[in-house]
Amino acid sequence: MSEIRRIHPAAQWSDAVVHKGTVYCVEVPDSGTDITSQSLAVFAQAERTLALAGSDKSRLLLATIYLKHMADRPAFNAAWQAWLPTGCAPARVCVSAEMASPDYLLEIAFTAAVA
Amino acid sequence: MSEIRRIHPAAQWSDAVVHKGTVYCVEVPDSGTDITSQSLAVFAQAERTLALAGSDKSRLLLATIYLKHMADRPAFNAAWQAWLPTGCAPARVCVSAEMASPDYLLEIAFTAAVA
Amino acid sequence: MSEIRRIHPAAQWSDAVVHKGTVYCVEVPDSGTDITSQSLAVFAQAERTLALAGSDKSRLLLATIYLKHMADRPAFNAAWQAWLPTGCAPARVCVSAEMASPDYLLEIAFTAAVA
Repeated sequence: MSEIRRIHPAAQWSDAVVHKGTVYCVEVPDSGTDITSQSLAVFAQAERTLALAGSDKSRLLLATIYLKHMADRPAFNAAWQAWLPTGCAPARVCVSAEMASPDYLLEIAFTAAVA
Repeated sequence: MSEIRRIHPAAQWSDAVVHKGTVYCVEVPDSGTDITSQSLAVFAQAERTLALAGSDKSRLLLATIYLKHMADRPAFNAAWQAWLPTGCAPARVCVSAEMASPDYLLEIAFTAAVA
Repeated sequence: MSEIRRIHPAAQWSDAVVHKGTVYCVEVPDSGTDITSQSLAVFAQAERTLALAGSDKSRLLLATIYLKHMADRPAFNAAWQAWLPTGCAPARVCVSAEMASPDYLLEIAFTAAVA
């Protein structure tokens, strides 16, 4: 059987799952009340989770970004571009959706390469 | 060429596609009129499809869950948690969306490891 | 470190990212004002991008299709079915969402196998 490594498995989700050199993780904001602060919260969490998986933000393959308000896209993009290392942007979806909490302004699903 | 195995390929989609030890499958409900019954229908179909691909619900890597009504999330979560084997939860997106049929209350895309 | 190949990396996204024989790419329409013309624009771009990645439309694993208007689904499906080679359909999500531009009627995220 191919090995699966789950990081912080809980009853309904794991923080990340690693399989065959690829890691899947999904982040929602744990703090912040505007798009910039929530984006920074998501990025900080993603960095911590990717590190536990043996990856980092220079190794992102695909990001699926859900925004509650598409009008937040310019502010999100500014934070996103500042966060990404030069030359390392993933393929990227950006669409609108409602999320688990009405307070969430964004949610991002990442697929990344493990080093 | 790396091998691709398609399960029940039809004109517009395949029930599942297997490549390099990873399987991709997407399920919509084929029965049920409330979130619980539709969730159980989706889970039952997923189990059948994953089995054909050489995987199972203990080997889920990522689940992207689309709910028509985010208010259905608590009931969905109860069914989801009861369905998942302990310690095996995938990374998980949960967002709202309209689906192909107005009768669909959920749709789930799974990425899973083949045994 | 496992190799990552990025195609046309820009500040906020890459046109495609290849890792371990799998390519991730996301397409939005660069022309067209109705669902059929925008779908054809997305398909043409996908073919060009997949070719640069060493893949093609016969090697799609998963397609996540976002439609601005679910009422466009029949017209999209007709174009999709005509575009796909027989027997090669990927697993497929089709949900509604608002996208980056109010002019976009669809966006598609593809996961495909590199030859």
